[in-house]
Amino acid sequence: MAAHPVSPLAPQSYPDLPAVAGVRFATAEAGIKYKNRTDTLLVALDPGTVLAGVLTTSKCPSAAVDWCRANLGHGKARALLVNSGNANAFTGKKGLAAVNRSADIVAAALGVAPEEIFLASTGVIGEPLDAEKFAPVMVGLKSRLADGPWMDAAKAIMTTDTFPKVATASIDFDGVPVVISGIAKGSGMIAPDMATMLSFVFTDMPIDPTILQGLLQPAVDVSFNAVTVDSDTSTSDTCLVFATGKAAIEPILSADDPRVAVFAQALTDVLEELAIHVVRDGEGATKMVSVTVLGAVSDTSARRIAQTIANSPLVKTAIAGEDANWGRVVAAVGKAGEPADRDLLSISFGDIRVASLGERDPTYDEAEVSAYMKNAEIVIRVELGLGAGSGTVYTCDLTHGYITINGDYRS
Amino acid sequence: MAAHPVSPLAPQSYPDLPAVAGVRFATAEAGIKYKNRTDTLLVALDPGTVLAGVLTTSKCPSAAVDWCRANLGHGKARALLVNSGNANAFTGKKGLAAVNRSADIVAAALGVAPEEIFLASTGVIGEPLDAEKFAPVMVGLKSRLADGPWMDAAKAIMTTDTFPKVATASIDFDGVPVVISGIAKGSGMIAPDMATMLSFVFTDMPIDPTILQGLLQPAVDVSFNAVTVDSDTSTSDTCLVFATGKAAIEPILSADDPRVAVFAQALTDVLEELAIHVVRDGEGATKMVSVTVLGAVSDTSARRIAQTIANSPLVKTAIAGEDANWGRVVAAVGKAGEPADRDLLSISFGDIRVASLGERDPTYDEAEVSAYMKNAEIVIRVELGLGAGSGTVYTCDLTHGYITINGDYRS
Repeated sequence: MAAHPVSPLAPQSYPDLPAVAGVRFATAEAGIKYKNRTDTLLVALDPGTVLAGVLTTSKCPSAAVDWCRANLGHGKARALLVNSGNANAFTGKKGLAAVNRSADIVAAALGVAPEEIFLASTGVIGEPLDAEKFAPVMVGLKSRLADGPWMDAAKAIMTTDTFPKVATASIDFDGVPVVISGIAKGSGMIAPDMATMLSFVFTDMPIDPTILQGLLQPAVDVSFNAVTVDSDTSTSDTCLVFATGKAAIEPILSADDPRVAVFAQALTDVLEELAIHVVRDGEGATKMVSVTVLGAVSDTSARRIAQTIANSPLVKTAIAGEDANWGRVVAAVGKAGEPADRDLLSISFGDIRVASLGERDPTYDEAEVSAYMKNAEIVIRVELGLGAGSGTVYTCDLTHGYITINGDYRS
Repeated sequence: MAAHPVSPLAPQSYPDLPAVAGVRFATAEAGIKYKNRTDTLLVALDPGTVLAGVLTTSKCPSAAVDWCRANLGHGKARALLVNSGNANAFTGKKGLAAVNRSADIVAAALGVAPEEIFLASTGVIGEPLDAEKFAPVMVGLKSRLADGPWMDAAKAIMTTDTFPKVATASIDFDGVPVVISGIAKGSGMIAPDMATMLSFVFTDMPIDPTILQGLLQPAVDVSFNAVTVDSDTSTSDTCLVFATGKAAIEPILSADDPRVAVFAQALTDVLEELAIHVVRDGEGATKMVSVTVLGAVSDTSARRIAQTIANSPLVKTAIAGEDANWGRVVAAVGKAGEPADRDLLSISFGDIRVASLGERDPTYDEAEVSAYMKNAEIVIRVELGLGAGSGTVYTCDLTHGYITINGDYRS
């Protein structure tokens, strides 16, 4: 894989992620595929840690996704092993053997049960993963386990990512701070309506795993499921949230606990920030784009139309070319397969209304909107005028960079 | 619009299209948008001509599509006016006024009823079409009406097309030749499950318009609806078939007439040839790709999976990069939302089986398949192993050329 320049949309600075009590980790160079960089992350979780997870709905999931799905049910976790450089997807019986062997290596090192170990792999599809490569680095990983720095963890799981992705939130429950910190990776093969690429979130909140699982899906729906880079859904999408329960407060044991809403909002904030980082690192991206659809017959319909616009290669190449080609937004609305009435449709780019009620806005000024298109962040708003449904999807532009990156990914 | 180099997939030679009795046409430079090229095609059809049509299912159709839909019902046609450079789409009341005025201009010149005139426009969306520009060229158009050359007609309707698209077939019914000749345009904003971009087909076959209409949809399904360039569906897709009835044979008046199947096959052949020309002129295309899915639970399911593969930007960029990245085909199958079992899945590139039963084929040879990827025509075959459903979709690769063309289309 060629090195690609850092996305111009990368954050100017990174937050300082605090330690999460009960979470220790380390990274290593296992030599899975890359040279001279870390490719393996081991996270050790204290006894009592529970988890929730959302996994890809791909019909061709990776062996690691199969493994996580089989073990999510009991809601308990003691370790997480992630590698980059190989997705262990479409690897048949070899893939199954590799996840079994990986879990055995971690289980032996940490003295925990294999079914409490979670696995994730990201990289090339179809290449068998040599799990034996984890064995020689495991002793060193165990000896280096520590509660930071989180940036090292985020870097070890990168593939075509050009910057590491971290986010954190803190909640104060009656004077006791609760931390939620997460990492993510993803840059291409990113599409909504699925879990995500890889994202791992850690909190010291004491919470029942069933309640945590119930919070996670809606949070994923407005974060990872609301972003698209290229409409291509991964075989390996995995979002796991681990809760160590170490914060010195009463645990959340009921969905009626008033702290649930507060915690859910903070969790959603962390996932949204990570999801937007993924878009900002979209392969070849030079513009961050948000597409909001209002006035649809339902939120689901609004979201589908927003996705169709956000996935349209013609809309995305026009944005890359700083061309205010709103006619392509019209075409995308038209093809979405959702209720829409051409003659009620209005479209804005930023605060500039470009089309109203089925035709070009009478005040349309090409120079004004062309100037707006030079911004690094583009906001598209579509008003359908049919109902009260709304939805937002985040995406990036489609540039020569995307073609270059994906024409030579394996070489 | 910048001039783009002719597609490397353009045909080496063009067929000589014979005259179709009852069809005369001429082209003109009306100055709609382009300079120094024809942008208007007028076709005059003899009395007795019937027609069938399939139009875009976009929720934001052009004013010309609305016009054709309103007039298709009676099945009679005396004229066709097509312009390039402006789609007359999303133009509100101005668009409606423009189609009325266009039809009036043609009606006055040819002495035919407006409802027997069919209209099509292709080009930029959202820009009002100035129909008055047709008035000064109409006298000249009428005076130049002739039964050839068809290449001039095909050229006048081009937008980002880099070569004109024509196809012809001839049938012998008991010694009487029947001709079917057609033209098409289209290069970007091409997606299946719709009519097409613009395509106009002419035949001297005497045939009942209801029977003709019944033949057209299945023919479109395996031709224009089986191609995709960029998954973006146009507001203007229009496929019209005109039958002058001038061939000296008994007309087809019953769907049970044994000649129906022969005629339908020839019509399908012409539409398929035109549709494949559209893909070969896909914006930025350097490779022609066919994707066949076998063993699906139904033909519909097979076709949806084939479309998902053919629309995957990651599959298309890999083909552009001559990278045999079949893992991306796996990912596309997985995201298609159709029944698939990873562990029954097999994939071939050309005659080379790259994956069998859920993993890399034991005989996989990277050098062999890399050599295959250098071909200008790539055949992908996916065997699902679930049932007897099959389907084929045609597409092209996704290259820097597509980004360049679509980043500056309006400038």
